[in-house]
Amino acid sequence: MNAYEQLVRHQEKIALLQSCNALLSWDQETYLPPKGVAYRAQQRAALSEQVHALKTSDAVGTWLEACESDGDTEEAANVRWWRHAFDRAQRIPPKLVGEFEEATSLAVAAWQDAKGKSDYQLFKPHLQTIVDYNRRMADLWGYEDSPYDALLEEYERGARSAHLSEMFGQLKAPLVDLVKKATDDAQGPPARDIRGDFPTEAQQAFNFEVCQALGFDFEGGRIDTAAHPFCSRLAPDDTRLTTRYDPEDFTSSFFGVLHETGHGLYEQGLSQEKHALPSGSAVSLGIHESQSRLWENQVGRSRAFWEHWLPVAQKHFAALEDWTPEEITRAVNRAERSFIRVEADEVTYDLHIILRFEVERQLIKGSLAVNDVPEVWNTTFHELTGLHVNDDAQGCLQDIHWSLGALGYFPTYSLGNLNAAQLFAAALDQEPSLARDLEEADYSSLRNWLRGNIFAHGCRYLPNELMERATGRATEPEPYLAHLRSRYLDGDHR
Amino acid sequence: MNAYEQLVRHQEKIALLQSCNALLSWDQETYLPPKGVAYRAQQRAALSEQVHALKTSDAVGTWLEACESDGDTEEAANVRWWRHAFDRAQRIPPKLVGEFEEATSLAVAAWQDAKGKSDYQLFKPHLQTIVDYNRRMADLWGYEDSPYDALLEEYERGARSAHLSEMFGQLKAPLVDLVKKATDDAQGPPARDIRGDFPTEAQQAFNFEVCQALGFDFEGGRIDTAAHPFCSRLAPDDTRLTTRYDPEDFTSSFFGVLHETGHGLYEQGLSQEKHALPSGSAVSLGIHESQSRLWENQVGRSRAFWEHWLPVAQKHFAALEDWTPEEITRAVNRAERSFIRVEADEVTYDLHIILRFEVERQLIKGSLAVNDVPEVWNTTFHELTGLHVNDDAQGCLQDIHWSLGALGYFPTYSLGNLNAAQLFAAALDQEPSLARDLEEADYSSLRNWLRGNIFAHGCRYLPNELMERATGRATEPEPYLAHLRSRYLDGDHR
Repeated sequence: MNAYEQLVRHQEKIALLQSCNALLSWDQETYLPPKGVAYRAQQRAALSEQVHALKTSDAVGTWLEACESDGDTEEAANVRWWRHAFDRAQRIPPKLVGEFEEATSLAVAAWQDAKGKSDYQLFKPHLQTIVDYNRRMADLWGYEDSPYDALLEEYERGARSAHLSEMFGQLKAPLVDLVKKATDDAQGPPARDIRGDFPTEAQQAFNFEVCQALGFDFEGGRIDTAAHPFCSRLAPDDTRLTTRYDPEDFTSSFFGVLHETGHGLYEQGLSQEKHALPSGSAVSLGIHESQSRLWENQVGRSRAFWEHWLPVAQKHFAALEDWTPEEITRAVNRAERSFIRVEADEVTYDLHIILRFEVERQLIKGSLAVNDVPEVWNTTFHELTGLHVNDDAQGCLQDIHWSLGALGYFPTYSLGNLNAAQLFAAALDQEPSLARDLEEADYSSLRNWLRGNIFAHGCRYLPNELMERATGRATEPEPYLAHLRSRYLDGDHR
Repeated sequence: MNAYEQLVRHQEKIALLQSCNALLSWDQETYLPPKGVAYRAQQRAALSEQVHALKTSDAVGTWLEACESDGDTEEAANVRWWRHAFDRAQRIPPKLVGEFEEATSLAVAAWQDAKGKSDYQLFKPHLQTIVDYNRRMADLWGYEDSPYDALLEEYERGARSAHLSEMFGQLKAPLVDLVKKATDDAQGPPARDIRGDFPTEAQQAFNFEVCQALGFDFEGGRIDTAAHPFCSRLAPDDTRLTTRYDPEDFTSSFFGVLHETGHGLYEQGLSQEKHALPSGSAVSLGIHESQSRLWENQVGRSRAFWEHWLPVAQKHFAALEDWTPEEITRAVNRAERSFIRVEADEVTYDLHIILRFEVERQLIKGSLAVNDVPEVWNTTFHELTGLHVNDDAQGCLQDIHWSLGALGYFPTYSLGNLNAAQLFAAALDQEPSLARDLEEADYSSLRNWLRGNIFAHGCRYLPNELMERATGRATEPEPYLAHLRSRYLDGDHR
């Protein structure tokens, strides 16, 4: 075997252990009995340890050196990707990895407690520890301009905080303005309230029907119930989605499923054979989120979508009997300012992200003290939305991400929104039949466009390069703002 | 750490990997999407390989030597158990382990094909291979009287074929006679047909209610759907049962659940802390099966049981509205000769086992050629039941066990029946209030008796020694025959 083949075999070994760990994790979120949680942590830690040892083994460095090139082949691109990951992994001493994992375990428990009691003081020392570790890791990883860039790199290769800051700056004022207008009651009668009687079994049947129609392959995947919707490719040909059910509101599970179906189509659209290689893996969180948001928002909240699917939904739900496509389209596009990011509508969502990005960046830079987070959070949130945060559970304690140790993750949500709008606009532009296909609930041409422009490339190109190849431009705010304006100001839900 | 502590840590490492493998296996039977099956085999093989390497590592031998004793402590008993397992594992070369696994993979596929086509010729060469490997392993493991003893030892430590043969000989004639009488239509009107409308959700609700009342802890366990009912302790405090549903007959899922609940109460009743040690593990298949059969048959098919549970069942199933406890007790105790072991009632079941035991023993001894299995099967089956086997799918191809490589496994089913009757009789004898407690659907005194006499000991005593301590006698046929006679001849369903 040559060095490249050795690397492939090594990565397949890693992927196999990671796939076992992915099942342990999926099961923990879906079926694990409560008393089994403690041992599950031991199982996952043991497999993670094996994975980390393999990832950082010296042999990898030797093999990499033997086959590195700047060639334009899939192999060369895989090797470059592995080199980047290997160097980053090597720079963090195993002792630090262990300490950080322990610190985040404690932080998650403290965060749950703090959130339950809405008492930031309980979480504060843990957040300080998390910030300190992230800052140390950023220094070990290295960066050119800002330590925050080194953290971003973990989730979105090539993203830089200065550039994000500029884009978010371009978004901010138009979004604040859009939210004001979209939530102005003087604009017309309020959307009809969708709440009613939506039995869980009926929701499951409807979700399944739509998910399958969008192209999700249930021979290689499934949908289960979990407290938080997610999508995980556990192994090749085994991609699982989850959602949760509100018996009074089918849109909660339904848009959860649409969102995760977007992630799932990406995972199923990647090469299953090359699942252990960069060329068969998703390239970044910002691209991944573009897939979920595209199917959830661009497709799933459009008028054309509900022209087709309302009659089907009516077969499942008696509560929708006298609804019109126009009414339901308006109802699922209602804008409302609220405190909680995960409940935010499309037009207010990014204000939540801009806030978090600013707080994180300043924490890492050292220009914001952990002690001052609630005050800055609340002031900024008021500036952005006009709402006053009354308790931290509804404010800076609402998200789990920081307690998990993840700083630099939040911006990828907004990148996903921008990318989704930009990709969808490009697809409409490049595929003249696409708009009509979508009206006829034929989703194959959209899927095929995404397959050719996104799925097929795996990690061959960095996210911005991928966007440029697909749309002619790196990620930019304008297509997204145009989408929001037409949908929320002009009432055009095409 | 001393040698014993090293062994404990080593076994905990093994148990952890095995628990991951148990989840992979459970998921394969319950939720794995069809396309994920191929990769799942790779995952399981990789973990099994790790486990095998740890189990046979030379360090184990060194540690064992350093702490072996014939003392009467839990530690000494654990060490003796490990020594036995280590010596057996060491005697099979890794190459043979791999070959055997491959042979059984091929055999399972061939068996499925052969069964589907009812064509024994397709399976014959694979059965020959399986018999040859089993014979080779028996020779490597070693035995005193019969090579079959070395195979039995894998499932039931201390069991010997000469002794089983003697016990089964004592069972045979009385059982043939019992079956004749119990299935004689002249004995009275046939039992009422239980088939009707039994929605799956209602079955699930009823099963859950009963399973919980018997004492199964759903904080540390669950019930899922699978093609074949089974129970698996995936990890400490995580014991999972499965069943399958016939929408026209609730008894199919219900007795499946009762049976698996018996296994589950044993697994949950063992020390969860010591799950990696013999002292926290189930001692044998014959003891395990006694627990499932006891709850399924001695408890679950009794008149007292249905006096209490019929009214509850009637709340779940409209189809049972006008049934009486007497009618349902008769219906769930109906004897009927049939071809398929897994569908057999209590009184005919052991004839199926006696047949398999005879065939297996002769195959291993070499006194029966693989070519002659169908003929011997069909002739013996006719002698035992009076039924003519018309095709091998209903005859010698019906069970998966041989294709999995398991010879010596079947007898433990009958040992389970004998042990169940003997343990239940002893419990009734030793606990004066037990009969009344069961009438009142209070299952705690039975559970406590089993905990003290079976669960608490783990693998401390070999099965027959355990039976002797609990009931005063090693396993014997008489209590079981007495149970069957009173139930099937005297119509006494206490």
